[in-house]
Amino acid sequence: MLDGKNIIGYDRTQRGNVTFRTINPILNKENEIVFYEASREEVEEAVGLAHSAAGFYAETSKETRARFLRSIAEEIMALGDDLIDLYCSESGLPEGRARGERGRTVGQLELYAKLVEEGSYVQPSIDTALPHREPNPRVDLRKMMVPVGPVVVFGASNFPLAYSSAGGDTASALAAGCPVIVKGHPMHAGTGNIVSSAIAAAARKHGLPEGVFSHLNSKGHGVGEALVKHPHVKAVGFTGSHGGGRALFNLAASREEPIPVFAEMGSVNPVILLPEILKKEKDSWARTIAGSVTLGSGQFCTNPGILMGIENSDLDRFTELLSEEILRISPSTMLHPDIAEKYNRGREQAREQKGTSIIAELSDTAKPNVGRPTILKVKAADFRENPRLHQEVFGPFSLLVICQNIEDLERSVALIEGQLTASVIGTPEELAGYDFLLRQLKERVGRLIFNGVPTGVEVCASMHHGGPYPATTDNRFTAVGEDAINRWLRPVCFQNCPDSLLPPALQNANPLSLLRRVNGKLTRDKV
Amino acid sequence: MLDGKNIIGYDRTQRGNVTFRTINPILNKENEIVFYEASREEVEEAVGLAHSAAGFYAETSKETRARFLRSIAEEIMALGDDLIDLYCSESGLPEGRARGERGRTVGQLELYAKLVEEGSYVQPSIDTALPHREPNPRVDLRKMMVPVGPVVVFGASNFPLAYSSAGGDTASALAAGCPVIVKGHPMHAGTGNIVSSAIAAAARKHGLPEGVFSHLNSKGHGVGEALVKHPHVKAVGFTGSHGGGRALFNLAASREEPIPVFAEMGSVNPVILLPEILKKEKDSWARTIAGSVTLGSGQFCTNPGILMGIENSDLDRFTELLSEEILRISPSTMLHPDIAEKYNRGREQAREQKGTSIIAELSDTAKPNVGRPTILKVKAADFRENPRLHQEVFGPFSLLVICQNIEDLERSVALIEGQLTASVIGTPEELAGYDFLLRQLKERVGRLIFNGVPTGVEVCASMHHGGPYPATTDNRFTAVGEDAINRWLRPVCFQNCPDSLLPPALQNANPLSLLRRVNGKLTRDKV
Repeated sequence: MLDGKNIIGYDRTQRGNVTFRTINPILNKENEIVFYEASREEVEEAVGLAHSAAGFYAETSKETRARFLRSIAEEIMALGDDLIDLYCSESGLPEGRARGERGRTVGQLELYAKLVEEGSYVQPSIDTALPHREPNPRVDLRKMMVPVGPVVVFGASNFPLAYSSAGGDTASALAAGCPVIVKGHPMHAGTGNIVSSAIAAAARKHGLPEGVFSHLNSKGHGVGEALVKHPHVKAVGFTGSHGGGRALFNLAASREEPIPVFAEMGSVNPVILLPEILKKEKDSWARTIAGSVTLGSGQFCTNPGILMGIENSDLDRFTELLSEEILRISPSTMLHPDIAEKYNRGREQAREQKGTSIIAELSDTAKPNVGRPTILKVKAADFRENPRLHQEVFGPFSLLVICQNIEDLERSVALIEGQLTASVIGTPEELAGYDFLLRQLKERVGRLIFNGVPTGVEVCASMHHGGPYPATTDNRFTAVGEDAINRWLRPVCFQNCPDSLLPPALQNANPLSLLRRVNGKLTRDKV
Repeated sequence: MLDGKNIIGYDRTQRGNVTFRTINPILNKENEIVFYEASREEVEEAVGLAHSAAGFYAETSKETRARFLRSIAEEIMALGDDLIDLYCSESGLPEGRARGERGRTVGQLELYAKLVEEGSYVQPSIDTALPHREPNPRVDLRKMMVPVGPVVVFGASNFPLAYSSAGGDTASALAAGCPVIVKGHPMHAGTGNIVSSAIAAAARKHGLPEGVFSHLNSKGHGVGEALVKHPHVKAVGFTGSHGGGRALFNLAASREEPIPVFAEMGSVNPVILLPEILKKEKDSWARTIAGSVTLGSGQFCTNPGILMGIENSDLDRFTELLSEEILRISPSTMLHPDIAEKYNRGREQAREQKGTSIIAELSDTAKPNVGRPTILKVKAADFRENPRLHQEVFGPFSLLVICQNIEDLERSVALIEGQLTASVIGTPEELAGYDFLLRQLKERVGRLIFNGVPTGVEVCASMHHGGPYPATTDNRFTAVGEDAINRWLRPVCFQNCPDSLLPPALQNANPLSLLRRVNGKLTRDKV
C-alpha cells in the first residue's frame, strides 16, 4: 500500500507536519505521492513497540522466524511490477537492475531463513561439570548467542531493495531475533513504503507482536539521530557516506550506554595492474575495468575509484584502450539530482588537483542527471602528496595512478587508507613475485581480489564485505553473507542451570539437533 | 630482572624523569625499588617497534606462537619464589593467592598455546568457484581471521598476574598474532617488571622481532592516553574502574580511526535469594555468600555487591546467620592504601543513603589498610529511588535489598544496569516458577548463575566474562576463556587467489589440518 505514511507496528501514521516527495531523475521531476516525515512522537512510539516486542520475538522458535522471513519474500514478490515500476521511477535505475536487486533481496531472505532453520549460528558451547576435579570442581557452563535487542537500519540510497527496508541488514537482524526499525532513505521513500507494508503483512500473518518491524520516513537528520540516541535501541546498521556514518558512530559512542554502529562508508577499491599481464591482456582488462567503473553509473561501494600501474608503453596502450571503452559506454542516469550534482562537483575538484589530467571523459548529454564516465590520471608522487586524491568520487569515476617503478607503487599503496577491497591483476608468476605488495594490501582491506574487479559482491558465507576504517566503523563484521547475522548477537552463559530452564539450544537432549561445541568437541550428540 | 625500567623490545630504558615506588599495604610503607615512568619518547618507540613487528609476527607459524606462549609460562615459573614474594609485597595478598594466580596465568598461556596449535580459531571458510552457475558464475572466495595489529593491555590492580603483563589479555593477543604493549599497573610495577622480563626473554629465545612485546611503567594517565591515541595501536584491553574504562573508550572512539576498547569495568553481580530455598538452606547459603563477599577482600569484578530477597521470617533468620558468618571472617588487607581509603569512603557513602542500615560490620582493627567486611540492608522502594545504591563499592561489601513480594523484586531487578553476572538461588520448583524474572536477568547479564555465587570464573570455552554496559564497553566479547582471542582478530576474504599465495589455513590441501567450513559444511578434508 503506497500511502506515504509511517508504518509503526501495524499502524500507519502521519502525525508530523513535514512532508516531502521523491524525484524521478530520468524525467527530472517530482513523483506524485507525498511522504510524511516521522515526528518525535512517532519515533518514540516505534522504539517503544520494538522494545516491548524484543523479549517475545527473541524467544520465537527458529521455525517461526524462518517462516516470517520467507513470507516477507513472498509478500515482496506479490507486489509484482508495481514494485519494479516504483523502484525505477524513484532511482532512475533500469528495470533489469530492479528485477536483479529484487532477486538478491528475496535470495537474502531465503539465505537467512535457512541459516536460522539450521540454527548453529547461535554457537552453542557446553562445558559439563567436573565435580571431582582437583583442586576445584568445575561447574556446568553453557553459552550461546542471543539477540541484542532493537536494531535501527538506515536505508541506502544506492540499494533501494537489497540494502533498505527488507535488505541485508533488516533480514539478518530479523533472523537474529531483533526487532527492526528502518529509517527509510528519502530518495526512494515509496519503494520503502510498499516493501515495509509487505514486511508488516508478513509479521501480522505469523501473529508476531506489533513493533517487530517499523518503517519511518525522514528527509533530514532528526529522525535518524533520535533513533540512534534512544536508550532502547541496541545496534545500528548503516550504508552510506563517510560523513553520515561517522556522525552516527560518534552519536552512538557518546550515548550513556554506547552501542555498536555497523557503518559501511564506501571505498576507493584500488585496482593494481602489474606490468607482465598488461603485455598480453590489455584489451580484456580495459574492457572489464571500464565495465566495472561504469556499472550502475558507478554507484556502488565497490566501485574501482583508483587504478594503479607502472609507467611503460603497455600501460600507455592500456590507457588508450580504456579510454576507448569508456567512451563507448552509453551513460546512465544517476540516482538523484543531488547525487549527480555532487558527482560533478567531485569530478571537477579532482580535475583541479595538481598533476591530474583527463584520460577519458564522456561529453555532455542532453539527458538530465547523467553520470558522465570519467577517468583521470596522475603521477604517483602527486597522488601521494595529495590526500584529496585518495577520496572517493561517488559515480562512474576512476583515477589512474602512474608509478615509475615497483618502489613507487609500493610507496603509494602504503598510503592507502582502509578499503572494502583491493584487486591485483597479474600473471601467476608476477603475482608470486609481489609478496610484499600483497601483504601491504592485505593489511588495508577486507577482501583481496586476484585478477578480478571489485564490483559484484557474492552473497555467501566466505564473503567479507567490510574493511578497516574508514571503509567501515567495525571491520570485525561483514554486511553481506551468512556471517552478517553476528552483528546482532551477543553471548550469554548459563552456569549450573537446570536442564528444563535452559534454552533448547543448550539442553542435554539437543532437541534442535544443533552442531555444538561440547567439552571442546563439535558434535550433534546429546550430552 | 627487577630494575624498575621500561622494557621496550629487548631494551631496558629509563629516559623520563618521573619516578615512583610501590607500597607494601601490610607494612603500610613503600617498597625499595624505584620505577621510571615512560616518557613520550619511550611510548613512541614501543609503539613503533610493535608496528614494525606486526607484519612479521602475524605471519609466524602456529607452532612458533605456541612455543612462545609456553616459553613465557616456563620463564614465569623460573622466577620462582622471587615472584611470589614480590607479588605479596606489592599487593598484600596472601602467598596462597599468589601461587593460585600464577597457576591460572600459566594455565591460560597453555590454553592459548593449545588453541593456536589446534588452529581452527582462524575460522577458515571456503566457497569454491561455480563457473557454470546461472545467471552468473561464482568466484572462489576464502575467508579467515587475521590479527588486528598492535594491542595495548592495561594491567589490572586486582590481578597482578592473571590480568596484567602476562595475563589473559596479553596471552590471547599474543596467541592471535598481535604485538602487545602493556601499560603496567603502578600498584604492582615490580611484579610487572619481572614478569615482562620473562616475556621478553621468551621472545628473544624464539628469535621474534623486537617489539612483539613491551612493558611501560606509568603512575598517571599520560602514558595510557598516549598509547590509546597512537595511530599504530589497533585495539585495547582494560580491566578496572568505570571511570577509567569509559575514559579510554571515549578516547578510542574520538580517534581519527576509532579502535575497539574491551574494557571490563566491574559489576555489582546481584544475587537473588528466592523464598522457598531459604526455608531449608539458610545456613549453607549464609556461609557461601559471606565467603563470596569477602573473598580476596572483595576485590573481584564478580564480587556480589547486591543481594535481594523477599521479606519474611526466613530472610530475617538468613540475615542473622549472614551477619554471624561475616563477623567470623578474619579481615584481610586491601591491595593498596588508596583502595582501602576509597573502600571506606564508599561504605560510608552507602551508609548515609536514605533507608540503609547495617546488618554486619566488622569492627576496626589495628592492622593498616584492612577492608572491613560490611553488609547493609535497604528496602526495595528506597533502592529503586536511589541510583547511588546501584553502584559498586569495590571491597568486601554487599547491600541486601529487601522486597515486599515478587512484584517488588521484579520491579527492582528491572532497574538493574548491565552486569557481568546475576545469580538466582532457589529450589528447582521455584526456579521454574520465576520465568519472567529469569528473562529479565538474562537481558541484563553476561552470565546467569543458578544456585551458585559469582566469584570463581572458570577459564573455559563456554565461559562468558563480559556483559551489557556498564559492565563492559563491548558485550559481544569475553575477557576469559578460549573465545577471548576473538577480540584481536578481523576477517579477510581472498577472492580468486592462486592456491600457492593463500595462507596455509585456506590452501586446497589443508596443510594445517584445520576444521574448515567448505561450501557450507564443516570438514577437515582437502578441497
